[in-house]
Amino acid sequence: MSIQVLNVQDRLEDVLHQQDLVQASGILSTLDAGTLARIIDRLDPPEAAVAFRLIRQDQIGYVFEKLDPPVQSEIIEHLHDAEVTRLFVDLEAHERVALIDELPAELARELWSQLDSDEVESTATIMGYPTGSVARWMTTRMVVARVDDTVGEVLPKVDDGLADAEMVYVIPVVDSEDVVQGILSLRNLLQSRHDLSTPTSQIIRQATLLPATMSAEEAAQEFSRTGALALPVVDHGQHLLGMVTIDDAVRILEDEIDEDVARAGGAEPLRQPYLRTSVRQLFQSRIIWLFALAVSALFTVQVLDAFQDELAKVIVLSLFIPLLVGIGGNTGNQAATTVTRAIALGDVHMRDIGKVALHENAVGFCLGATLGSVGFVVASIIFGVDIGLVIGLTIVAICTLAATVGGIMPIIGKRLGIDPAVFSNPFISTFCDASGLLIYFLIAKLVLGI
Amino acid sequence: MSIQVLNVQDRLEDVLHQQDLVQASGILSTLDAGTLARIIDRLDPPEAAVAFRLIRQDQIGYVFEKLDPPVQSEIIEHLHDAEVTRLFVDLEAHERVALIDELPAELARELWSQLDSDEVESTATIMGYPTGSVARWMTTRMVVARVDDTVGEVLPKVDDGLADAEMVYVIPVVDSEDVVQGILSLRNLLQSRHDLSTPTSQIIRQATLLPATMSAEEAAQEFSRTGALALPVVDHGQHLLGMVTIDDAVRILEDEIDEDVARAGGAEPLRQPYLRTSVRQLFQSRIIWLFALAVSALFTVQVLDAFQDELAKVIVLSLFIPLLVGIGGNTGNQAATTVTRAIALGDVHMRDIGKVALHENAVGFCLGATLGSVGFVVASIIFGVDIGLVIGLTIVAICTLAATVGGIMPIIGKRLGIDPAVFSNPFISTFCDASGLLIYFLIAKLVLGI
Repeated sequence: MSIQVLNVQDRLEDVLHQQDLVQASGILSTLDAGTLARIIDRLDPPEAAVAFRLIRQDQIGYVFEKLDPPVQSEIIEHLHDAEVTRLFVDLEAHERVALIDELPAELARELWSQLDSDEVESTATIMGYPTGSVARWMTTRMVVARVDDTVGEVLPKVDDGLADAEMVYVIPVVDSEDVVQGILSLRNLLQSRHDLSTPTSQIIRQATLLPATMSAEEAAQEFSRTGALALPVVDHGQHLLGMVTIDDAVRILEDEIDEDVARAGGAEPLRQPYLRTSVRQLFQSRIIWLFALAVSALFTVQVLDAFQDELAKVIVLSLFIPLLVGIGGNTGNQAATTVTRAIALGDVHMRDIGKVALHENAVGFCLGATLGSVGFVVASIIFGVDIGLVIGLTIVAICTLAATVGGIMPIIGKRLGIDPAVFSNPFISTFCDASGLLIYFLIAKLVLGI
Repeated sequence: MSIQVLNVQDRLEDVLHQQDLVQASGILSTLDAGTLARIIDRLDPPEAAVAFRLIRQDQIGYVFEKLDPPVQSEIIEHLHDAEVTRLFVDLEAHERVALIDELPAELARELWSQLDSDEVESTATIMGYPTGSVARWMTTRMVVARVDDTVGEVLPKVDDGLADAEMVYVIPVVDSEDVVQGILSLRNLLQSRHDLSTPTSQIIRQATLLPATMSAEEAAQEFSRTGALALPVVDHGQHLLGMVTIDDAVRILEDEIDEDVARAGGAEPLRQPYLRTSVRQLFQSRIIWLFALAVSALFTVQVLDAFQDELAKVIVLSLFIPLLVGIGGNTGNQAATTVTRAIALGDVHMRDIGKVALHENAVGFCLGATLGSVGFVVASIIFGVDIGLVIGLTIVAICTLAATVGGIMPIIGKRLGIDPAVFSNPFISTFCDASGLLIYFLIAKLVLGI
């Protein structure tokens, strides 16, 4: 081994001891596959596993093949060591993306199949599958067919899978490179068993492939769209990593309902039965939201403070504050809820923001005109036409603004990478509160001449 | 035929012509099965179908057997006639329950299997399955095994089903009376095929049975609880009616998300992609809610009206109205959302109302004490300790009340038979608005001595 390599080896060991993954990745990126294999062969097994995970995608498969077989199995073993995974779990998400490439499909499958459910969370991270991705729900206990198999060759594979595969009714079909070509259903297979020489290619069906990094929620929607019982999970090169089954899709959807509903109400989901949740936990799930909302509601105090003189002159104006603020908040909420849901369903995208704004503007105006007419009549009868006019016009303006803002805010939130459900209802109604008050007093000044 | 029977026949024809189902049911309930069969044999087919649906549960199977075979098939045919079903669809729900009993399982299955998807909605009603019940999602295209079948006898049934059954992977097992005993999975069946004489009873598994009248949502939750691919739907006697498959459970859950999320935001679900929904339809989905909320918000005007003098004396009190109202509304929403979801998941029942009230009371007080302390400090610095005290105390009181009310309202709503999602957030925040204002001014009067 050359002196240069030994130097690199020393430096690498140093930075690995210091757990400085960024610098370790920098050192490794300068080396060719042969050198990498030689260096990793000589590292202690946990450090070898860490170094291995820092190798670039285009080299990692080749390096693994070149390692001594005992080192290979030690690396696989240490990849789900708590100590090794903690290093990667602690990284910032963007650093993790920069440092860890996808594992080769075959290696990923082998590693995954050894994990128990406690290890899935942390090991998924080290394998490069982000939090909330569909890969975290996949199983590798499945029956796999080759595209050049005949029905007579696949049936014994199904037999082998009967005892321990998680799902035997859907069978992914791959080519010699492990690239997914489609799926077979056990049903089609049984229908074709009168002629065991039928080539798989004759009964193969197209399948929606789930990229490992796809969000679990999007993946679950693919199930409701296609009605499939299981779908293959693949890496960037469409190599088979595993399968997600529809019963997991149901669980993902249920979690999603929990989360959406809780956040729409301004709280975090509980993740456990209500009566077993302590007062402390309930408090914690709510206080941050409540505090954030209260702070943003301080705007309303400021707006009213600015109009104290007008309020003092026409005290009757204060009577309508909660009513008008409520109408604005409710109108904004309605629009935000509808559009948030449309985004989740994939019906509305970033490019539709103009269309949504126009649409909601028209709906808001119609709602405002209807409610405003009623408000005008009622308020005129009790407090006189002047006040009636102020109330009526304010309702029209507030509804139009609130619906438009409520409609586009979730789209902007999505664009900024914020979960629309977090961004939406409570904050939109707070925004509508403050801007509604502003509109109210401006119209009052204009109409009443105060 | 006796004169008496002829008289009854005439009277029955009369009331059927008048489409008076209540009276027709009264006439039919006085007759024994033999007379019923003779009378129905002589009616015109559509009227025979109507009369047949008015016969009591304990007679209906026996009457059907006694009918002439051509009349039997005419009745089945006319049971999904648009005209016949309209009569029953138009009934009030409670009348329908009183008038229509369950069809015998075998007849129900046969009728169901003839329906196309357009006919399911109306025919489900005439069969006695209420709107939103799981029966409306069931299929009768399934493989059924008998409990005394051997594996060798079930396998050919699966073969027959491969071509057109909706689901061949789960096989309900019934006894000679059509009562469901459990299920077989195709997987277990294939695992046992090395010994074709294995009795079904050795590989049968317990299954959760879905009563035909169970709500589709509850049924979908059974899927997420059990992870089953399909579950049998049964009548009150646990006779097999059909099966619901997991892909339908996914669709039910998705519809449910739509509905819950929309209603939590105070609107009706759209049932079609957002951008294809017209301004008019969006307007309609929202105006009723908005109007109802605005009308209930009139309470806030009344409360403020009652405290006009106090407001005029201390105009600074008006500045905090939207802030305090907002805190109350948000706290109430959080509690309502959490408890509504807990009800939907079956974690909270009517009997838990006391526990929930205590729980939420404690959480509300903690939230109020935290926010109230901050409010006291901030308001004291800007507006003096007197105002600070009013604001702080009000926040404690409002949070405690709002959380408690928000927590128990969904349970009361459920008890009254109102969908908790309809009853909850927007109305609770309106209630919290008005009562919060009341608390605010009472505390202000007390502390400030105005």
